[in-house]
Amino acid sequence: MNYTAEIVAVGTELLLGNVANTDAQMISEALAAAGVNVLYHTAVGDNAQRLTEVTEIARKRANLLIFTGGLGPTYDDVTREIVCRVFDRELVFHDEVMAQIQHYFDTVFRREMPECNRRQAYLPSGAQVFPNPVGTAPGCVFTAGGITVMLLPGVPHECRHMVHHQVLPWLKQQSGEVILSREIRTFGLSEPKIQELLGSVMDEAVNPSLAPYAKSGEVLLRMTAKAADEESCRRLMAPMLAQVRDALGDHIYGEDVGSLEEVVVRQLRQRGLTLAAAESCTGGLIAKRLTDIPGASAAFCGGVVSYTNEVKRAVLGVPQDLLEEYGAVSAPVAQAMAEGVRRITGADLGVSVTGVAGPDKDDRGNEVGTVFIALSCSGGTEVHQLDLGRGRQRIRTLSANHVLNMIRRHVAGMKE
Amino acid sequence: MNYTAEIVAVGTELLLGNVANTDAQMISEALAAAGVNVLYHTAVGDNAQRLTEVTEIARKRANLLIFTGGLGPTYDDVTREIVCRVFDRELVFHDEVMAQIQHYFDTVFRREMPECNRRQAYLPSGAQVFPNPVGTAPGCVFTAGGITVMLLPGVPHECRHMVHHQVLPWLKQQSGEVILSREIRTFGLSEPKIQELLGSVMDEAVNPSLAPYAKSGEVLLRMTAKAADEESCRRLMAPMLAQVRDALGDHIYGEDVGSLEEVVVRQLRQRGLTLAAAESCTGGLIAKRLTDIPGASAAFCGGVVSYTNEVKRAVLGVPQDLLEEYGAVSAPVAQAMAEGVRRITGADLGVSVTGVAGPDKDDRGNEVGTVFIALSCSGGTEVHQLDLGRGRQRIRTLSANHVLNMIRRHVAGMKE
Repeated sequence: MNYTAEIVAVGTELLLGNVANTDAQMISEALAAAGVNVLYHTAVGDNAQRLTEVTEIARKRANLLIFTGGLGPTYDDVTREIVCRVFDRELVFHDEVMAQIQHYFDTVFRREMPECNRRQAYLPSGAQVFPNPVGTAPGCVFTAGGITVMLLPGVPHECRHMVHHQVLPWLKQQSGEVILSREIRTFGLSEPKIQELLGSVMDEAVNPSLAPYAKSGEVLLRMTAKAADEESCRRLMAPMLAQVRDALGDHIYGEDVGSLEEVVVRQLRQRGLTLAAAESCTGGLIAKRLTDIPGASAAFCGGVVSYTNEVKRAVLGVPQDLLEEYGAVSAPVAQAMAEGVRRITGADLGVSVTGVAGPDKDDRGNEVGTVFIALSCSGGTEVHQLDLGRGRQRIRTLSANHVLNMIRRHVAGMKE
Repeated sequence: MNYTAEIVAVGTELLLGNVANTDAQMISEALAAAGVNVLYHTAVGDNAQRLTEVTEIARKRANLLIFTGGLGPTYDDVTREIVCRVFDRELVFHDEVMAQIQHYFDTVFRREMPECNRRQAYLPSGAQVFPNPVGTAPGCVFTAGGITVMLLPGVPHECRHMVHHQVLPWLKQQSGEVILSREIRTFGLSEPKIQELLGSVMDEAVNPSLAPYAKSGEVLLRMTAKAADEESCRRLMAPMLAQVRDALGDHIYGEDVGSLEEVVVRQLRQRGLTLAAAESCTGGLIAKRLTDIPGASAAFCGGVVSYTNEVKRAVLGVPQDLLEEYGAVSAPVAQAMAEGVRRITGADLGVSVTGVAGPDKDDRGNEVGTVFIALSCSGGTEVHQLDLGRGRQRIRTLSANHVLNMIRRHVAGMKE
C-alpha cells in the first residue's frame, strides 16, 4: 500500500494559539522515517460542522487520514461521532476498552471514574483498537473504501506513545516493506556548499533518497532507503554513505545523533576527559546545553559565567593589564579565560567565549558579531576569531555551536 | 470588518516533521487577542499544485488568509506566484523593497547579494508592503473580492516581528474599533486555585474577557477589552484589574512583561543591585535566561556552574566537611553556594540551586525533584526546599523559575 497522508488535529486550543501542534510534527517525523508521504496538516476546532467538512476534503486528497484529539469524555469531543458519520460506521461499545479505562482510574488517578468516561469506550465498528496504557483515550484504525482512518489521542505524550507502539508497527505489517533512514549532521558548511560538494550524488538519489535541511549554521542530511528487509536497506545505503562521508569529511559531526552537545558529551566520556567552560557573551548557554544531556556530569565539571570584567579578573584570574590593554573582547582575554577556567576547575579541557552579542558595539568599537573562542589543554591553547553577523540570540546560538564544534574537532584529533 | 481567518503554512519541512508549526500558534495567539476568529490551520509543502488547491479551499471558508513561508529567494519558494495566480494579480517589482534587501546583505550578512534574492522584491500588484527589518523576505497585504490576503515570512522570529509591527496595527486600523489586551503574569498558584480566588470575576467576564493559560508553574491571565478607543478600553478594564490584583496579591509578578527574568533584570537595574548565581542542577539555565535579556550586563555579574563537588569546593569555597556531612543536595550546601558566589564575584545578591534533576536518585537517596535554593545578601541567607516531581527538563525549568521568583520577592520586599 502506498500511503499519502493528511494529519487532522482537532481542538479549539490550537486555533486560540494556546498550544502548538506538536503532534503533527511528531507524527510527520515518524511517518517520514517510515516512508509515508505526508501531504497536508489541518487543524480545526471542536466544531461538528467544520470537522465534517474538513474530513470530506481530506478523504478526497489523501488515503491515510490521521486524526488527533477530540477523543475525550465530554460532549465537545466530537471526533468519534463525526468520523463515523462521514465513513458510515456505527459507534460500538468495547468491553475490553472500558476495562482498561476503569483500570487506569483505579491505578493511576486512584479515584472513581466519572460516568462520562464511558463515552471513550465507543469506537467505530470494524475498527482495530490501539490500546492506550498512558491515558484514558484509546485510539483505533479502520479502512473504508480504500481510505485508512486512524484516531489518536491529542495529549502529546499519549499520542507519541501510540504512534511508536501501535501506528508504526501497524504500518510496517501492512507494507511488508522496510524503510530505513539515516541522519547525517554537519557543521560549518552552508547548504549551497554541500550541494556543490555532493554534486550529482544528491540530484540523482532516488532509493536511497537524500534531502538537506539547514538550521543555525548546521545542515542535516536525511538518507532514506526502502527494501524488503533492513539488511537490504543498509546495502542500498552503503555506497551513498561512503560518497557523502568522503565529500564532507570531518564537517560531519555525527550520524543518527541529536545534537553537537550530545556528540561532545559522548566523546568526552569515551576518552575519560573532563571539560569546563568560561562564558561571557553566551551567558551560560554552553553549560545549559551540555547539561541538557543526561549523564553530562561525568564529563562536564561546570564553569564560570563571567559577564563582567570583575568576574573575569577575580574568579577566572584574567590579568587586569590584559583587560586594559586589549579589552574584554579580544584573543588574549579569550585565551586567559580558557586557561583560567581550566586551572580553577582542574578540568582536562577549558573552553571560553567572549564577544559582542549586541544590540550595540562594545566600548572598544568592536562590531556586533565579533566573537573570540578558545580551547586550552595540557598541550597549549588555540584561539579563533569569528564574525557572526547580527542578531543577539543568533550570535549567542552560533557562538555556542562554534565552541562545541571546536571541542569536537579537538577531541577527535587527539591521539588515542 | 468581521474577520474569520485561516492560516496557511507553506513548507515541506513542516510535513517532514523537521519543525513544528509555531508560526500558526503565535499568529493565532496574536489574532485571538485582537478579536479575530481563527477557524483553520493548514500546512502544505512547497508544491505549486497542492498550494493552489489549498488556497482555493481557504478562500471559500475564510475571509482573512494568512500565508507563512515560501517567500524565500529560490525556485521552490512558490507562495508569491500561486497566490497571484489564484487571486488574479501580477507580480510587481518594488525598488524600495529591493533596496531594503540589499541593505540587509550589506549590513547584516556583509556579503554580496546573490542574484536570486531579486525574486523577493516581487510582490502582488496592489499590495501594501510589510517591511521586514529582521530578514530578507518582505510581507504584504491585499484585498481581492472581499478576501484579505497576507503573506508573511516563515522564519519564526521574522514572522513574529511582522505580526506585531505590521499585521496587528493594520488590523486595528481596519476595524475602527480598538481591542486592548493586558497580560497578568503570576507565579506560584495553580490554575484551579486562581479560579477559586477569582470566583465569579472570571466566570462573568464578557467585556473585558478574562482567560487563564497555564505553563511551567506559571499562570498567565489575559484580559481583553473592546471599545471605540484605548481610553474607553482602559476604563472598562480598570475595575476588573483592581479585583484581580486584590485577589492574587504578590503572586502577580508582572503585567505586560515577557518573563520572570525580564522582571528581575528590570528590578535589579532600578535598585542598582548586582546579582550572581551558583548553579548545580540547572547547569547554567538561570544565567542563560537572565542574559537572554538585553541590558542584563548592568545587573548580572555572572556566576558559576558547579556541576561537580570539586568545583563547588575549589571555585565557590563550599567547605569539604559540609559536602561530606550533608551531601551536595542539602540546605547547608545551597547556603554555602549562594554565599560563596556572592563573595567571589562581589555581587550584592548571590543565589544558588542544587538538586536532583534525575533520571535517578542521588547517592544520598534524595528523590528526583528534591531541590534546594538559596539567596544571600548583606543581611543574611534564606534557603528553601522544593519538591518538584519528575522530569529532567521540567525540574530544571521549574527550579530556575523558583530561583527567579525568590529574587523578585526579595528585591520587592527590600526597603527603598
